Order: sequence, then structure tokens, then C-alpha cells
Amino acid sequence: MSPVSRRALVIGGLGAAGAVGAVGAGAALMTAGEAAAPFSDAVPFHGPQQAGIVTPAQDRLHFVAFDVVTKDRERLIKLLKDWTAAATRMTAGQDAGEVGAVAGIPEAPPDDTGEAIGLPPSALTLTIGFGPTLFRTADGRDRFGLAARQPSALTALPRFTGDTLDAGLSDGDIAIQACANDPQVAVHAIRNLARIGMGVVSVRWSQLGFGRTSSTSTGQATPRNLFGFKDGTRNLKAEQEDLLREHLWVQPGDGPDWMNGGSYLVTRKIRMLIETWDRSPLAEQEAIVGRHKGNGAPIGLADEFDEPDLTSVGDDGEPIMPRVAHVRLAHPDTNNGARMLRRGYNFVDGSDGLGRLNAGLFFIAYQRDPAKAFIPVQRSLAAQDELNEYIRHVSSGLFACPPGVTGAGDFWGSGLFA
Amino acid sequence: MSPVSRRALVIGGLGAAGAVGAVGAGAALMTAGEAAAPFSDAVPFHGPQQAGIVTPAQDRLHFVAFDVVTKDRERLIKLLKDWTAAATRMTAGQDAGEVGAVAGIPEAPPDDTGEAIGLPPSALTLTIGFGPTLFRTADGRDRFGLAARQPSALTALPRFTGDTLDAGLSDGDIAIQACANDPQVAVHAIRNLARIGMGVVSVRWSQLGFGRTSSTSTGQATPRNLFGFKDGTRNLKAEQEDLLREHLWVQPGDGPDWMNGGSYLVTRKIRMLIETWDRSPLAEQEAIVGRHKGNGAPIGLADEFDEPDLTSVGDDGEPIMPRVAHVRLAHPDTNNGARMLRRGYNFVDGSDGLGRLNAGLFFIAYQRDPAKAFIPVQRSLAAQDELNEYIRHVSSGLFACPPGVTGAGDFWGSGLFA
Repeated sequence: MSPVSRRALVIGGLGAAGAVGAVGAGAALMTAGEAAAPFSDAVPFHGPQQAGIVTPAQDRLHFVAFDVVTKDRERLIKLLKDWTAAATRMTAGQDAGEVGAVAGIPEAPPDDTGEAIGLPPSALTLTIGFGPTLFRTADGRDRFGLAARQPSALTALPRFTGDTLDAGLSDGDIAIQACANDPQVAVHAIRNLARIGMGVVSVRWSQLGFGRTSSTSTGQATPRNLFGFKDGTRNLKAEQEDLLREHLWVQPGDGPDWMNGGSYLVTRKIRMLIETWDRSPLAEQEAIVGRHKGNGAPIGLADEFDEPDLTSVGDDGEPIMPRVAHVRLAHPDTNNGARMLRRGYNFVDGSDGLGRLNAGLFFIAYQRDPAKAFIPVQRSLAAQDELNEYIRHVSSGLFACPPGVTGAGDFWGSGLFA
Repeated sequence: MSPVSRRALVIGGLGAAGAVGAVGAGAALMTAGEAAAPFSDAVPFHGPQQAGIVTPAQDRLHFVAFDVVTKDRERLIKLLKDWTAAATRMTAGQDAGEVGAVAGIPEAPPDDTGEAIGLPPSALTLTIGFGPTLFRTADGRDRFGLAARQPSALTALPRFTGDTLDAGLSDGDIAIQACANDPQVAVHAIRNLARIGMGVVSVRWSQLGFGRTSSTSTGQATPRNLFGFKDGTRNLKAEQEDLLREHLWVQPGDGPDWMNGGSYLVTRKIRMLIETWDRSPLAEQEAIVGRHKGNGAPIGLADEFDEPDLTSVGDDGEPIMPRVAHVRLAHPDTNNGARMLRRGYNFVDGSDGLGRLNAGLFFIAYQRDPAKAFIPVQRSLAAQDELNEYIRHVSSGLFACPPGVTGAGDFWGSGLFA
């Protein structure tokens, strides 16, 4: 049976405008030198590392965390294989299954749900991670014979000062991050993975992000978060191979071999009290963040990409960069050199029932070792950051993302279950 | 003080790629003949009708319903004037206020929140509507001296069979629909209107839609809803002037003069039980909808735009178009010629706590008279539509949308408050 290619439908059904017109969407955030073509093209699924980490951050997100509801290790392995096949197809712009949304026998449910028919691959990436609870339940039970393979880096995050976490919106056995430049493509992917997983996994929580807040490539302009500031200027970038080796990718000897070439994913849903923020004077906002709002330059400097000056002192004897500015507290120099690759998204989840928009940042960060990166940085921020007056951490997750799927026959988590 | 133009920042800061690259986003749904330029351009705010109704449906939505919390009619009128000024600016790609996000005095809060700096107008439209409760409270109190001006068409919708409405997510005194091709632009607009309204209005509920499900112009290809089907093929279109006069725009003599040239807006948040739907055979899905899933053609016909055949009978003596197919039940021939202009959006609001995605359709329809359009059609659908097995109506709203703002000095609702 020949697979139905959504791309083929696009070219056949909508004409050249479908392919040409989809190029460059959202490109107000692109720089002059950036090629527009990848915007709607496919991102290769196979490779030594998972796509969706250093891939130039796509515009839209659908993130899901699953609980595994089976006790059967073989069923779980089969699902990971089925998911890998579907992910390979969907990231290439094809239907989730071989039969497809509209072919096959009428008496059977389609093996694709159909809402992405006619849409290009849209740079879809699907990135999987395994939570601590997959290895061992809270009471120590080895659910799937994986306890001996649990990395020491993969233990529940500590509680941070001020945390107001919703347990039902936190953690999970398996997480999948779908990023794409068309939200319908990202939603379609998660929805079909959930469909395929029926009876084996159950959706624990899920989050849409409408706008990226980070750049992961030097070719991308820096976007703005819902505080109105440029965010992630100093983010790790795909082009910084030495830094990625040091700070992003798990190296041999760090822990169990199955994680070599992988990375640890931290998610934090951070509600922003935007109504309060919006009443703060511009100068106070800038002092709290440590950047000028207009062009994103660090306080006292002229250009967004100028290195923040943490040492100079003004005429009043005070540091030019305020002592508790977010930029200072999060800076590697303040955190033993700690760095992460962030790829968070803005969200609005309706209203909060108290007359306010339920809005904020879905923080996503990848790192080689959370104990040397997110955990100490967040400890410092939680204790001192004046932004805390305007934010609430409401969800948290830590997941071990294995290396990439290297080709046909390989599957998500093959090393873990080998 | 010279206004800060976000567009000027785009051209100054990001170079040609900002302007060129942003053209054509999401255009997989455009047809070959459709011009790409309007995708990021401004839609004129002023005109005899409000923009955002027959405007070619933009890709993204942020909808908000407010409660008015003041008792002071003059404060309400001042807010409507302030909102009109901000809407005029934001739809042109400018900051919400004259000072802007980054200019002005540092000791004052900015009069724009900043997250749309650098983004083009993105075809933003802002469309206002007034709910029945603005005219008269549930216990009959005339809150703002408007009771005598309440149109008879603007009374709370009846309860329909199967309704499972959440009162907190329904109705409202004032609704504003923000549509744009960049979700950050739509969110920015609603967020700034809420900011400006602080103390006068309070956010009652708010809804993001990530993907349009209707075309409102013959130049747009028909998108798909989360059942995977093309939706809105037979929708009223901007080009059908005679039909719009008959079915969409309020005409002189219909009711109070202040609504002439306006339209009535019905919103329904319709949760889709996609997990159940996804287990249904393709043939059953097609029979329930009354269309072929692939190209959207009515059952028994070849092309999406073929007129559905409601009368032909097959060899088995049964109608070729099933008796309770959604297409038949919603067809004008089955509803005394009733037609609406729909511009709904797909949504995913995370998960439902029961292992499923919380996903569906945020239905939006405009019409000349709900008593002749939405109400009878929905009564029929609620009683007979087999889709009811797969959907739940969880929120409902009816709003009177006045005619357009015709120029400087005019404001949203000027006719109502005159």
C-alpha cells in the first residue's frame, strides 16, 4: 500500500502557491541572512541527536506528558516502536500511519486523523524524554526493569522557594515535545501519538505555546516574552559546538551509556502576573530584568549582544547592573559557568476566574546535567530574583531525552530497553 | 510626541527579510490566485462595517469577554473611546498608546506592553460586541440607561438539548474578537485592551484559537477542523454582497437604528471528544458529516463545492445523503434558507484531567438575526445530529456587534450611547 503523502496532496491540490506561500511565515523574527525555505520544510528525524533541541526554534509548541498505564514492558516497547514509525512519517509531512487519513477500508478507523492534510511538514520536530517515575515509582517499585538504568541526574527536582506547583500539571512518565511552524501540525502530531498510545499511555498534561521566546541558532532574531522583553539573548546556539558539548549533550562517563548524546529537559510552567507587571514603571521593569526594553541591550550598554557588564560601578558607588537584576542572577559568571539551551514558549490559557488572563511562559531548557545547570540557577533566582513578585511556577518536569534515532530499525529509547 | 510605529521598527531593525519573509505565512491554505501581501499587512480599522467579520479569516484568534465592573456610564463611554483609539493604533501595527512600549518617562508604566515590538500588523482585526447583560441585569435592572435600546434579537440564547454549559465561560457584557495571522499580535491586542480597561472591566473568560476552521472569502481554501474534515465550504463569503445583505448585516427596520450595519455574534465553545471520534470507521465519520473526508465533496459527489444533493435516492431506497448527516441538517434548504457567516477556530486547552486532550472548535458565527439563523439551526442539530455523540457545547455567548467606526471622533458603540 503506498503511503499518502500530505506533501503530495499539497502540490497536487493547491498548486504552487501552497508550497511557495508557506515559505517564510512568521519571518518577522528572521534576520536578513536567514534562508526562508526551512520554515515549511521537513527537519530530518534521524540523526545522532534528537531533533527539536538545537533545531532553530520553531514558532509553535504542543507539549504533552503521559502516564504509562500498562504494566507490560513489551507493550511499552511496542508503543515506542510504533511511535517512532509515526514520528518518522509525520516529521516528513506524511500521515501518521501507512493507510492514512482517507485511504484504506471504510469499515476501519483511519490511521491518521486528517486535520493536517494539505499542510507541509512545517519543520515539525518530535522530541521524547523519560521521567524519573518511569524507572521507579514514588514508593521505589521497579515498574519495567529499568531501575538500574536510572541516571543519577534524573531524580525529581528539589522544591524551590516560592514554588506553587500543581501536581496534576507536573512530571509524567514520558514527555513529547512537538515544535512546528504551523500549530495545526504540532497539535496533529501529539494528537496522533496519543491516539496510537491508547491503552498504554494516558495524557497527564498538555500545553500549547503560541510564540517562541528563545532563539537556538545565531540566524534567528531574539523574540519577546509576555513581559515585553527580549529573552534568551545569551542562549546556547546550535552553532556553538564546543559549548554544546560542554553544557548540552550528555558525554560518555556522565552516567549510563544509553544517555550518551542525549540531554536533560526541564519544563516549568511560569504564570506571569501581567496585570501587575503592566503597572510597573519602565525604569523598574528594566532594572528588574537588567536589559533595556527597546533593543534588549544590557543595562548601561548599547547593543543586545553586548556582554553584560557585571562589575562596573556608577558614580553612586552602586553596580551599573543592579545587584539582583535577572540578567546578573542568571549569568554564567554568577553560577559557576552554568549554561542551558532554552526553547520556551509564550502561553495564554484563557482566564483565571479572577478577572485576569492566565498567561505566561512555558519554560523549556535542555542541559547536560541539571544538578550543574537548572537546579543551582533556579535556586539562586528563587531566592533573590525580583521577577518573583510577578511570576508563579505552577508546573515542573524533568525528563531524560535519549540520543537520536539513527535509522530504520532503531526506535525511541532503544538504548534504555536494550 | 511622535508615535512609535512597530512597522517602522521592523523596517529599521530587521531589514527586508522582516517585511518579505513575513508574507505568505500559513499559506498552505491559500489558493493559487490569492495575493500573499495582506497576510502581514494592516486591515483598515475604519469603515461602514466592523472589520473581522467578512475580512478573510485570519489564522489565529484571541477572544475575550468582559464583565463591566463600574456603575458609571461616563467611565464606560470613556473606556470605549480609549479602546477605539488603541484599536485604531494596534490594527495599524502601532503601539497601543501614544507614548509606546519603550519611550516616555522612565517613572511611568509604558502605555504598551511591548511584546509585539517588531511584528507587522499581521492583518489584526478587533471586533466588539455587546451582550444582553450590558442592557439589563438578570433581575431586570437598567444598568447604564440602555434598556430601551436593547434589540429584541439580543436576548439570552435558549437552552438547547444536550447543552453542558459552564456559566463562568459563557456570556459577558462586552466581547472583543482579535484575529490576526500572528498569535502574538492577537494576544498583545487583547492584553492591552484589558490593561486599558482595568477598573472598568474585568476579564470574564478568554479563548485562544490556533487554527481557523472557516473561509470567509472565495480566495481562501477551506481548512480542516479537529475531526479532520473540511468545514465551512458553503460559508457566506465576503464577495456575496446580496447574500450578506440578506443574512449577515442588520438592515434598517430590523431593530434599533444603532445596530444598522451591524451583526449578531454567536460564540459556542464545542469540546470534541476526539479520542472517541478517532476510533470511528472512516465510512461512519463520512456518513455523520455528509462529506468525503479526502476532498470534502458532499456524499455521492466529486468536488468540494458541488451543491449537496439532498433529494436523490439510492438503489436501497434510502437518500444518498444520509437523513441525519450534518450537512443536511445544517443546510439552508432544511432551515428555511437560514445562513450564517462562520469564522471559528480550532483550540486545544491542555488536557481534561481524565487522560484526554481538551480540544475542539470555538464556533463563531455572525448573522442578521439569530432567531432566524443560529437558534433554529442549532435546535435542529441538537435534536438530531449524530455528531452530538462526539461533541459537548461547554460555553455560549450572544453579542450585538454595532456597525463600524467611521472615522476620527467616532468610537465603538457611539450609536448605542448617543
